[in-house]
Amino acid sequence: MTGTPAPFTSGDYEARMRHAAEAAAEAGLDGVLVAPGPDLVWLTGYRPVETERFTALVLRPGQDPVLVVPTLEAPDAAAAAPTLTLRDWTDGKDPYEVTGALLPDSGSLGVSDNTWALHLLGLQKRLPATRQIALTEALPMLRAVKSAAELDRLAAAGAAADATYEEIRKVPFAGRGETDVAADVAALLRQFGHSQVDFTIVASGPNGANPHHEAGDRVIEHGDMVVLDFGGLKHGYGSDTSRTVHVGEPDAEEREVHDIVREAQEAGFRAVRPGAACQDVDRAARAVITGAGYGEYFIHRTGHGIGVTTHEPPYMIEGEELPLVPGMCFSVEPGIYLPGRFGVRIEDIVAVTEDGGRRLNTTSRELVIVD
Amino acid sequence: MTGTPAPFTSGDYEARMRHAAEAAAEAGLDGVLVAPGPDLVWLTGYRPVETERFTALVLRPGQDPVLVVPTLEAPDAAAAAPTLTLRDWTDGKDPYEVTGALLPDSGSLGVSDNTWALHLLGLQKRLPATRQIALTEALPMLRAVKSAAELDRLAAAGAAADATYEEIRKVPFAGRGETDVAADVAALLRQFGHSQVDFTIVASGPNGANPHHEAGDRVIEHGDMVVLDFGGLKHGYGSDTSRTVHVGEPDAEEREVHDIVREAQEAGFRAVRPGAACQDVDRAARAVITGAGYGEYFIHRTGHGIGVTTHEPPYMIEGEELPLVPGMCFSVEPGIYLPGRFGVRIEDIVAVTEDGGRRLNTTSRELVIVD
Repeated sequence: MTGTPAPFTSGDYEARMRHAAEAAAEAGLDGVLVAPGPDLVWLTGYRPVETERFTALVLRPGQDPVLVVPTLEAPDAAAAAPTLTLRDWTDGKDPYEVTGALLPDSGSLGVSDNTWALHLLGLQKRLPATRQIALTEALPMLRAVKSAAELDRLAAAGAAADATYEEIRKVPFAGRGETDVAADVAALLRQFGHSQVDFTIVASGPNGANPHHEAGDRVIEHGDMVVLDFGGLKHGYGSDTSRTVHVGEPDAEEREVHDIVREAQEAGFRAVRPGAACQDVDRAARAVITGAGYGEYFIHRTGHGIGVTTHEPPYMIEGEELPLVPGMCFSVEPGIYLPGRFGVRIEDIVAVTEDGGRRLNTTSRELVIVD
Repeated sequence: MTGTPAPFTSGDYEARMRHAAEAAAEAGLDGVLVAPGPDLVWLTGYRPVETERFTALVLRPGQDPVLVVPTLEAPDAAAAAPTLTLRDWTDGKDPYEVTGALLPDSGSLGVSDNTWALHLLGLQKRLPATRQIALTEALPMLRAVKSAAELDRLAAAGAAADATYEEIRKVPFAGRGETDVAADVAALLRQFGHSQVDFTIVASGPNGANPHHEAGDRVIEHGDMVVLDFGGLKHGYGSDTSRTVHVGEPDAEEREVHDIVREAQEAGFRAVRPGAACQDVDRAARAVITGAGYGEYFIHRTGHGIGVTTHEPPYMIEGEELPLVPGMCFSVEPGIYLPGRFGVRIEDIVAVTEDGGRRLNTTSRELVIVD
């Protein structure tokens, strides 16, 4: 895909809301409540500022969706979702009364994962005979399978992240702070069309052994392994890729650890096919690392979904039996973390195809030497 | 206050946690659960990336606080809160089991307002005999009364916002887009020491009639009223001020509406004194606007608290009977919104003193003419 994709239409959003209401009915839910956040963006295109003021989309099988909004926000909501029915409430009124009247007073309700406890407790008081289930438990597949238009956007975001990696390989590393390289990464992501940069991890030397180290004051030295892991949103869809580079020539152990992670990433990728379980991807990658004697140093799950956010279900993790379906998109990102020494992580976004997987990141996974 | 304030120490955070546990006991709570967000920042100084991975501080009266974190985040948590006891859980394990074991299995639990429903539901399943209460309902005063060190930071943030207003008055408005002026505001806030810009509202002409309009494509014209409302964080504490300016000479009605709002803001400010209720501030401001015949056009509450966030309890709103206490800080921001025409809002942050209120914003509230 080149250029800016056509925006999703009211019709697209209506189809998603219809699909969600039908999926909810099939899952035995009598209603769904969607708070501001990625579920609401995906279902309606509306992305309000998240405040304590209650805002939620109410979906019921067989009924029209209704968006409950503070009166203050009604004009913005109407502009973002022009065909959606709005029900507004004014400061000082009880939004749970308004919302409760739109929901059944018994049965099961799905609530989006990130709904505030303040609001869930308010609704539980108003609808004491209902039972609530987190939306990713009740409808784990709601956003998991991407449409062709969504896959195009994810591929474009991946290509922009790849272009960023190709450029960042060329910048000087030795003698610069991690945050300086991270600033270069952020600038490149924006240059290649990202509207939002979510993370720019530059973890050098011993910092690489902390998988969630972002970028700090440490000055990168000759001889360092450096984990690069970055992503954000382009045209509303996410990118996320990791490569590990070495400043100058690596030693034998560094090469070996990198080779093991690369093989593990390849094994994880090869496990991607329709009908395999999410945990199979984790097991395949982990088996390589465990077999090489580094099992205790692979301290996180193998992957996470991606879509209108950069981290979302499904998770590639032991115990997740959800079967892969064509159109799912997620990261495959094994790593080895040697405390106090260095870390290696390699990550591609992979889309499930009819007969396997397709990498949305295609830069070289060989160990690259930087200056 | 000039220069950078000394950071809060582990001792400061320990005192806050002790205070919170004592306040919880007094409020009849048997435990408190604090998710990532402003409550956690205030209590511990720890500001993790908010993800679906469960993280929470557990407070129990008479016991040491414990921070439950994903294993992945443990190094960052230990660095941010070095004296705090950590209990980590690994991907694939049940964090609610770990957390449930730290909490009583009956009684009342306070949970921070923004705890995810996903996590609250997980805990409700694990601790079915407990009752949960949103923290701002259970402990509405937890962060509401600021210490001297916090008031210094809020005053410094306010002074930086005031400096921004003094400069933005001098830039050209007519013929430029709202977003261009908003970019100037953001740059000035950063120049005057803000580390984070939360909002830069530039609402010109009819856009001013939507209190939550941010800044859009509209080109500002000669003759426009323009609502400016901006703020963010400086040294970890918030600023938030609004002034309404006019491009060229205003007409009689514009002057009159501005005068009414200015008087309403003054009346709200004068109602601030220890022992008055939050709603008294709203009533005082609203009475002026209603008395002038514009009551139906003042469509929001009069104010909100401010501290480590730019919007937090307490709220200056009809029905809020919480009494004002010296050290509380909140906005006083009445407005009049004439649909399709223009809006006026004037806002200062006010700190409650021993015998009244102290404005933390002190720029002129007269109607200023810009170019």
